[in-house]
Amino acid sequence: MANETGHAVGNWKELSLSYEDASARLPEALQKEGFGVITQIDMQATLKAKLGVDFRRYTIFGACNPGLAHTALLKDPRVGVLLPCNVVLYEKEGGKVIVGAVDPMQTLGVGAGPELAKVADDVAQRLERVLAALAG
Amino acid sequence: MANETGHAVGNWKELSLSYEDASARLPEALQKEGFGVITQIDMQATLKAKLGVDFRRYTIFGACNPGLAHTALLKDPRVGVLLPCNVVLYEKEGGKVIVGAVDPMQTLGVGAGPELAKVADDVAQRLERVLAALAG
Repeated sequence: MANETGHAVGNWKELSLSYEDASARLPEALQKEGFGVITQIDMQATLKAKLGVDFRRYTIFGACNPGLAHTALLKDPRVGVLLPCNVVLYEKEGGKVIVGAVDPMQTLGVGAGPELAKVADDVAQRLERVLAALAG
Repeated sequence: MANETGHAVGNWKELSLSYEDASARLPEALQKEGFGVITQIDMQATLKAKLGVDFRRYTIFGACNPGLAHTALLKDPRVGVLLPCNVVLYEKEGGKVIVGAVDPMQTLGVGAGPELAKVADDVAQRLERVLAALAG
């Protein structure tokens, strides 16, 4: 599922964990890379409450590495529209669990300056290790 | 401040409101465009608590239009790494208040398919009206 429709919206891996296990392990995997979970959105519950529709299990974890966020915000205060960095868990048809993370190099856009791109690249590598730890 | 360093990280406007007034009016302006505030991060308090550093007043509001989020997630479940849509308030040196919103056309990347781009364009126009309402 690296790129199922030919364009990139984040980076993704299929897991062999259950949804519950993946949800439980994700905060620890993020912590090892210096991220705390500062927001958590249950999209299934949100869509049920707001629209009355049934949706797959789907949780958006907002992850923040305070040191890297501070560094990025000092370089350009506008970067806050891209914070926190989202890590998503969802259940596919058939029950397989998918984990994905935002790609900060993608969301910053091709025109981001080199200083900000350096921080984004660091974040991207950390998030890649988080996904790999869950998929391991 | 449309583009102060020559590259785009969201869309921004300088306000003549106080920080308190802008914070109070933003949820209502979002509501008029169908967005609820589902997360709110006080970055000044977060950076003080986590790093002990002093930072400017800076709040990240996570805005979600449930109908548009649902439409986008049905087209491509991976779009959740870009949700909710962030609207940021911060205080510049000198006390002027700045409001900005993520540009979903930018964060989706140039390769997003036309169906998702249509939703993103709708969201972008709504967020533009939210910023204009505050700046008005």
